[in-house]
Amino acid sequence: MALLESTHRRKNPLTGRWVLVSPHRNNRPWLGATEAVNETVLPKHDESCPLCPSNTRANGDSNPDYKYTHVFKNDFGALTPNASEQSQSVESDSDLFIADEASGECRVICFSPEHNKTLPELEHDALHAVVKTWKDNYTELAQQYECVQVFENKGEIMGCSQPHPHGQVWAHSHLSTEIEAEDTQQRAYFDKHGTAMLADYVKKEQVDKTRVVFENEHWLVVVPFWAAWPFETLLVTKDNIQNFSQLSDVQTDSLAQALKVLTTKYDNVFNCSFPYSMGWHNAPANRGSDEQHWRLHAHFYPPLLRSATVKKHMVGYEMLGESQRDLSAETAASILKAASTTHYKNTAG
Amino acid sequence: MALLESTHRRKNPLTGRWVLVSPHRNNRPWLGATEAVNETVLPKHDESCPLCPSNTRANGDSNPDYKYTHVFKNDFGALTPNASEQSQSVESDSDLFIADEASGECRVICFSPEHNKTLPELEHDALHAVVKTWKDNYTELAQQYECVQVFENKGEIMGCSQPHPHGQVWAHSHLSTEIEAEDTQQRAYFDKHGTAMLADYVKKEQVDKTRVVFENEHWLVVVPFWAAWPFETLLVTKDNIQNFSQLSDVQTDSLAQALKVLTTKYDNVFNCSFPYSMGWHNAPANRGSDEQHWRLHAHFYPPLLRSATVKKHMVGYEMLGESQRDLSAETAASILKAASTTHYKNTAG
Ligand SMILES: O=P(O)(O)O[C@H]1O[C@H](CO)[C@@H](O)[C@H](O)[C@H]1O
Ligand SMILES: O=P(O)(O)O[C@H]1O[C@H](CO)[C@@H](O)[C@H](O)[C@H]1O
Repeated sequence: MALLESTHRRKNPLTGRWVLVSPHRNNRPWLGATEAVNETVLPKHDESCPLCPSNTRANGDSNPDYKYTHVFKNDFGALTPNASEQSQSVESDSDLFIADEASGECRVICFSPEHNKTLPELEHDALHAVVKTWKDNYTELAQQYECVQVFENKGEIMGCSQPHPHGQVWAHSHLSTEIEAEDTQQRAYFDKHGTAMLADYVKKEQVDKTRVVFENEHWLVVVPFWAAWPFETLLVTKDNIQNFSQLSDVQTDSLAQALKVLTTKYDNVFNCSFPYSMGWHNAPANRGSDEQHWRLHAHFYPPLLRSATVKKHMVGYEMLGESQRDLSAETAASILKAASTTHYKNTAG
Repeated sequence: MALLESTHRRKNPLTGRWVLVSPHRNNRPWLGATEAVNETVLPKHDESCPLCPSNTRANGDSNPDYKYTHVFKNDFGALTPNASEQSQSVESDSDLFIADEASGECRVICFSPEHNKTLPELEHDALHAVVKTWKDNYTELAQQYECVQVFENKGEIMGCSQPHPHGQVWAHSHLSTEIEAEDTQQRAYFDKHGTAMLADYVKKEQVDKTRVVFENEHWLVVVPFWAAWPFETLLVTKDNIQNFSQLSDVQTDSLAQALKVLTTKYDNVFNCSFPYSMGWHNAPANRGSDEQHWRLHAHFYPPLLRSATVKKHMVGYEMLGESQRDLSAETAASILKAASTTHYKNTAG
């Protein structure tokens, strides 16, 4: 098929944006920056870590001696609750200076009491607890906010400023640009086809299998046809589920298993703790409308391209034109499929 | 004004995307990654550099002994001309698997024969030659391609794989996602107001002055109201110009001066060679239609936030929700305004 070998574009139906695919380009020599690999062996507990159990944070609060996860308010959150009832003066002049107030909450979720255990290194019950914590925080915050963004920045090159494995939740009343785009696109598809975009997509990928990395009873992991990042994946429900609050215990278990497999495979691609930003896209909350056009899903955006030290830079052309990738989604999927489900740290030799 | 101090959102009218502004957040402690500052003093000529005059590149071609700029075909371009007349098989299935062929040309523009001279370090005639080269390459390529993207990735952290100062041109027949978005938005504004969005914007900023970094007879440099990157700027024509081919010699001169001032100020913010990705947005070419809705402009996207070594990471929330910034556009503008126009390397002491 000519498509896989020569330059072409693919369109992301969730956002409407295109990506330029240049499969031949991964052969060029690389003289640019390499990323430092953080080889520091971390202790199980770090006295100076504000996320470890029983430690005291800068604001004086003490963490409990937690056994699974621990959630606290981000002391330097980008969003804060609207302090008073007084409405803010907002400068919106014509169609050029458009501004709006924004308030909300930012939380930190410690994934485990152990300072040195990332998601793929957690046991099943610990991963189950992480998913349950996502669900509980979503469910609570979705009562007040329309948009509850659960995410994780993993690794220093993804701007993660604390080595202790953790994720975040940013909740606010407005719809973010990405959620707005995905909502519009999924709704238009539903209006046209009478079926949900991601439900149809899951079915097609299950038949084709080329891009499927893993599937279990309730979840599918696929390198989406329109992937922008080298090893980008979409982790999507196979059920008719729009948000975290609908997750049953069985679906939670199944998700914990899918997370274990995917993050282990990631670490095994380059035998390193694979950096990424990942996050969940729930249907907007509290609209009182039917959200059948939406399916709960997570995006994983990992930057590494050629090795533990060479990442894809989404820079000049990508910022000013559109995303560009140097290996096809199908090649990336075959590499992830072939990657072992036994973590490299646990492999003898 | 409450807007500047508490969290709010601003909308980019060129793309329709929002940015979350959290001015209080720059006070948080930073424990994350710091970027290496490249302190290597580069020679004026490097025998092993494929961009220096008279050297031979990997493909066997020799560079001329050029005096100002030198342009050559990128040996590892993401786009290649459509080799034959045979049309490609393109996999487009329903509304989920949408693909299109893409062909074009990628060129490298060496800015100067001197291996160690970045834009702010060039003399006026050399900068004039850079602008003239942009214009000539645009004019030539725009005869064949609708979309001619001129850009520069500066610095290792922007994925620049060659220290020799250079930019690139990627030309293709389709409109990239960003150009398509800006075209749609500017056209809608023009249809509604009968005036060009950026022409109106320039006039408002000239009166307000808060965000204006520099202006001369033909160009305005402003930290746009909707800036996403910490020190993002928009360099925009004050004239009725839609693309590079319309540039007069006087406008070229004026642009060379504006580039000198802006890039010098950038380097002086943190006393380092300030990394960025920048690029030009010309109106789409060859449409045979009136492009009065468009104004020629460049975006500068520099990643540094707090120092030469701490950058803004556009990661989890930003990738999954929307861009977020930690200082207001007005604060960034005042820092850039205050920055000297004499390059720090030329300052005694
Ligand atoms: O063309 P270069 O400088 O080798 O490569 C750089 O710029 C390109 C265009 O923005 C990007 O696609 C690459 O990821 C980046 O490393
Ligand atoms: O909240 P953190 O981990 O300190 O900060 C990190 O994640 C945030 C959310 O994606 C980003 O805004 C920051 O740029 C990044 O450094």
